[in-house]
Amino acid sequence: MKQVKCAIVAIGSELLEGSVLDTNSNYLAVNLSKHGFTVTDVRMVIDDKNKILNTFNELFTTHDIILTTGGLGPTFDDLTAEIFAIATKRELEQNVTAYKHMADRLTQLGVTIGKGHLRQVELPVGCDLFDNKFGTALGFGTEYNGTYIASLPGVPFEMKYIFENHLIQFLIDRFKPEKIHFKDLIFASLPESIIDEDIRTFELVDTTIILNAGKAQLKVKFRGKDLCEIDKYAKILVDKYPKNFLGYDTDSIAKLVVDICRTNNHTIGFAESCTGGMVSQVITDISGSSNIFMGSIISYSNQVKINQLNVAKTLIDKYGAVSSECADAMAKGAREILGVDYAVSITGIAGPTGGTDDKPVGLVYIAISSDKKTVVFEERLKGDRESIRVRSTNIALFKLLEAIKN
Amino acid sequence: MKQVKCAIVAIGSELLEGSVLDTNSNYLAVNLSKHGFTVTDVRMVIDDKNKILNTFNELFTTHDIILTTGGLGPTFDDLTAEIFAIATKRELEQNVTAYKHMADRLTQLGVTIGKGHLRQVELPVGCDLFDNKFGTALGFGTEYNGTYIASLPGVPFEMKYIFENHLIQFLIDRFKPEKIHFKDLIFASLPESIIDEDIRTFELVDTTIILNAGKAQLKVKFRGKDLCEIDKYAKILVDKYPKNFLGYDTDSIAKLVVDICRTNNHTIGFAESCTGGMVSQVITDISGSSNIFMGSIISYSNQVKINQLNVAKTLIDKYGAVSSECADAMAKGAREILGVDYAVSITGIAGPTGGTDDKPVGLVYIAISSDKKTVVFEERLKGDRESIRVRSTNIALFKLLEAIKN
Repeated sequence: MKQVKCAIVAIGSELLEGSVLDTNSNYLAVNLSKHGFTVTDVRMVIDDKNKILNTFNELFTTHDIILTTGGLGPTFDDLTAEIFAIATKRELEQNVTAYKHMADRLTQLGVTIGKGHLRQVELPVGCDLFDNKFGTALGFGTEYNGTYIASLPGVPFEMKYIFENHLIQFLIDRFKPEKIHFKDLIFASLPESIIDEDIRTFELVDTTIILNAGKAQLKVKFRGKDLCEIDKYAKILVDKYPKNFLGYDTDSIAKLVVDICRTNNHTIGFAESCTGGMVSQVITDISGSSNIFMGSIISYSNQVKINQLNVAKTLIDKYGAVSSECADAMAKGAREILGVDYAVSITGIAGPTGGTDDKPVGLVYIAISSDKKTVVFEERLKGDRESIRVRSTNIALFKLLEAIKN
Repeated sequence: MKQVKCAIVAIGSELLEGSVLDTNSNYLAVNLSKHGFTVTDVRMVIDDKNKILNTFNELFTTHDIILTTGGLGPTFDDLTAEIFAIATKRELEQNVTAYKHMADRLTQLGVTIGKGHLRQVELPVGCDLFDNKFGTALGFGTEYNGTYIASLPGVPFEMKYIFENHLIQFLIDRFKPEKIHFKDLIFASLPESIIDEDIRTFELVDTTIILNAGKAQLKVKFRGKDLCEIDKYAKILVDKYPKNFLGYDTDSIAKLVVDICRTNNHTIGFAESCTGGMVSQVITDISGSSNIFMGSIISYSNQVKINQLNVAKTLIDKYGAVSSECADAMAKGAREILGVDYAVSITGIAGPTGGTDDKPVGLVYIAISSDKKTVVFEERLKGDRESIRVRSTNIALFKLLEAIKN
């Protein structure tokens, strides 16, 4: 059965100017792929009529589905419906359903209907509509020359609502994509090049493999129609690198941590300095984390380390806040104070300032404390501030996972 | 002087499958625009020879600069150099400088040079090289038919290093783009449609305006060569909406907060429940925040609210953890315990579970406490978990900013 080829078009000058990060395309790519669709093109386009039209025209010839995000608002730079109509050779008309939806919503919000809002409900004649519970603009779509093109709002939670609740099932019913199997293996501390050499020896028929070298991990992602073939080759790697193999997952390290804590009834908490809340935020991203995550102390200043984590002032005076001794004391303090089974502390120098010859930017100490023992790890990371914080977060969660599993 | 048109190509199947979020394109878009280059196309392409080649060929005809990220690694799916060579009609050869750089680096890391690494240093003959302090792959570029095409690694901090330290100056010297002026106005609580109607009355010659409706704010971004024209129209909006106008900035709300605290010598801290560390992380993203941010208590469980923030158990029993009373107590507790001038608390229901008819998903209380007063705000937010957390974070920072300014 042939692939159902999808293109994603993110419309909006703010994306190409960089002031807004496009997360919609990534979301659509993940969720289309999950259901067996193949995403082969993702493009960002400025709010320019010709550019949008040319993009649509180019993509019609090579894709079964085009999904667009953005450009459905009431302002002068919202052009999607107009260009959609031109591209699909339809007239625009004031859509009754869209008008009612808009009018109800604006009435509730106490906003007067303006020229822009009237323009916002001029949609291509005869298009399919997809309800938007969270916003003014409905999604809309139509078939043109064998391609189904649908347009969604650019606001992420509105787009996700429409996609999850209406559009994806519509597309599945229409195209009946072949079920693809996914298997992700997560390895710690294994260079990409080593797994690459193994993969070159595989005789794959129906399976593709994508390698994702992350900050502290390597993901080997198997995709294909033949689950037996996937399992066969996945097993080869798992058996070959048992010490490095952390688990199967399509999810984040944070979810692995939350799942294992829920399974084993462990509670956790953090004492964060240089990561400044990132570890806590990443864990609490996971719905259900409140079952196992009790809280954290973000001890950005030394005073808070002393007052809230019971780190001795003499210790900080002697060894410094960025030291294995301080990480050890922070983790032990957090475990007692938060009353958790496992506490993780992170103290380091994220940069760009603050480094010395002795303690350079990127020096990070991570400690994991349980009632059995407290272990401290020293990392010397390279990169910019954000990268050092993200890597510290990932390493901290990996070390926690390893500690719980062993 | 004509525009210097840039296209950005992010290469990597993992991007179109969605397992990795492309932040490189956004970074390049921001930083090219900042220097006067005009980004008109951003594309993601899978690791497929034909697709990459077709993309390059399409973009050559319409762009002055093409920047690619990704595909420079040592594995079987790293194809950029090979396709770059075909597209620019050059041979590949083992590059001496690249080889030495790779060999030195791998020796330091104790990694054996494999076939993949040798392939990694086969670069187009005669290309320009751009040093990579943080990784194995050097950046490389060349001119072809009037277009300058350069390829950078996909690992974000490696790409940023090369771009910031070598490539951007190279491009500025070569193309001498005309300096563009930027002015961003940030408004709180102003609907997009209202500003849109004002903008429709402007007679702009050399200025473009981009509207960014955010979670709790509206950014009006002026861009153009004529600073007088920009100032004239910016002033019209500032004078028309003085209560809503928060400030000028190209930066985040977090940076506005850090700046104003540094200027006025205020210290801050947070008591976070549903945001789980996000507010703290966003503030500590800003280099220099350690001057003003002392720390936070992430009180995800009620026990931590009671033990670490001195919220009375009887208060939680009576009103619940998601209540204005609890937010008030959390903020006051945090201010005393962390010893800061301003404390902000956030307690709410981020969802998707946990809501009731009485207290639905999206109900969030935010309190700002200073020695003068403690004020509590009730928000009823719509959206998914991430969106509610992000919006709560933004609203909390805005309210803090308003409190400090008034």
